[in-house]
Amino acid sequence: MGLIANEKMKPKLTVVKIGGNIIESPSDLEQFLDLFSMIEGHKILVHGGGKRATEIGERLGVRSEYHQGRRITDSDSLDVAIMVYGGLVNKKITARLQSKNCNALGLSGADGGVILANKRPVTEVDFGLVGDIEQVRAEVLHTLLYNKIVPVFCALTHDRSGQLLNTNADTIASEVAIGLSTSFDTHLYYCFEKKGVLANLENEESVIPHIDKLNYHELLEKKVISDGMLPKLHNCFYALEQQVSRIYIGNLTMFEQGTNLYTSITL
Amino acid sequence: MGLIANEKMKPKLTVVKIGGNIIESPSDLEQFLDLFSMIEGHKILVHGGGKRATEIGERLGVRSEYHQGRRITDSDSLDVAIMVYGGLVNKKITARLQSKNCNALGLSGADGGVILANKRPVTEVDFGLVGDIEQVRAEVLHTLLYNKIVPVFCALTHDRSGQLLNTNADTIASEVAIGLSTSFDTHLYYCFEKKGVLANLENEESVIPHIDKLNYHELLEKKVISDGMLPKLHNCFYALEQQVSRIYIGNLTMFEQGTNLYTSITL
Repeated sequence: MGLIANEKMKPKLTVVKIGGNIIESPSDLEQFLDLFSMIEGHKILVHGGGKRATEIGERLGVRSEYHQGRRITDSDSLDVAIMVYGGLVNKKITARLQSKNCNALGLSGADGGVILANKRPVTEVDFGLVGDIEQVRAEVLHTLLYNKIVPVFCALTHDRSGQLLNTNADTIASEVAIGLSTSFDTHLYYCFEKKGVLANLENEESVIPHIDKLNYHELLEKKVISDGMLPKLHNCFYALEQQVSRIYIGNLTMFEQGTNLYTSITL
Repeated sequence: MGLIANEKMKPKLTVVKIGGNIIESPSDLEQFLDLFSMIEGHKILVHGGGKRATEIGERLGVRSEYHQGRRITDSDSLDVAIMVYGGLVNKKITARLQSKNCNALGLSGADGGVILANKRPVTEVDFGLVGDIEQVRAEVLHTLLYNKIVPVFCALTHDRSGQLLNTNADTIASEVAIGLSTSFDTHLYYCFEKKGVLANLENEESVIPHIDKLNYHELLEKKVISDGMLPKLHNCFYALEQQVSRIYIGNLTMFEQGTNLYTSITL
């Protein structure tokens, strides 16, 4: 009871992660940014980069290498990621939000030193300049949020030795949410192309409205959840265990008033 | 006397603009960032982009158009500027400064809405997506500076309608200095390839140590000042008239301890 009352006293923070499919469609992006700018209270946006980096990399003659479907980031690919995620996508989203009365400020994890990461250790494969997050330094984010500034993160971190690192945008969103959940009642939204976690991949309307630890295990046993969704849900429960209040998975209609077609996840 | 006492009570702010020649040389850049990170008190860095944008633009098949030696910024050239200045150069400088215990945070004028500009009006020529600064909104910069954050600006502004605009880095430096000089004792450094304003362009050592309004007019009459330096000096006196305390022109050695080979400019 004490804990619940305490939770309720924290100010609300909304963290939204948008995927490549929204960024690649100018009309979807504009619609999303309209909806995002109307969210009340403290908020943070995290964006991936989509196919734009691959396309620009190809035009620059930078070839992406892959190991078992996962991209390997060499120095040239990282430069492309910095240009496209940290530059083009991040600054354009920021400028668009500014036009919608949302005081956005674009960040990589190096800016203000907010996300410290370590280069992923080399095991049987070297993923290159990829960062695993060590720490979200929340002070700068507190300063920004309490001054009504809206941080907009691209998927880059740094290692405090001057090296930028490519980092998964889903992970940035969950680590930022976790890092701020001691001082905020943090709600984390994963906005992607589907309406939620589907009970039947063939049926776009078969959204599971609510997942908690109890029915999660049932869904796992019945093999309802698709392979692609498993690591996402695993990360969601990890974030919830680290005091993130609630997680939502859906497409951009989940920010529209009155919508209840999405998946919400709690412990 | 009252005014002087008042000036002295303002905290000191150092604004440094570095040009393309420093950015293009990794060793010069590293040396500069070492020196910059050691400057005490509030500070701001403004950087141009150098030839990197032209080179990357060419590799992307984006051709730069010029009118009487001045670049015309179309939508594709602006994208290159956003990628190179706002992304690659800005984020790498920020990450390097973070490794030197300097809590840098990269900004375009759109971030936090700090630099509002208007697209330059079309006269006999349309320079395209180029911004003339209307206003520096100092509140966000105050917040950052008072939280020991070091803003690092690239040469981009926005028009509050969602459009980013290419803007001269010298102008960004002077307008930011002007915008903050009501609350700070602002010292503005233009760091370029020469040791200062030269009395004789053939002699790199012929630095004029001090220019004020009085000898400026003498130097003009004697045609000592080169054509390239005239608009720079004109802008310096404009900034000084807007309460910037002092302006310095020189190369990166001007930040070394004990150096006195540079040009300082006062009213």
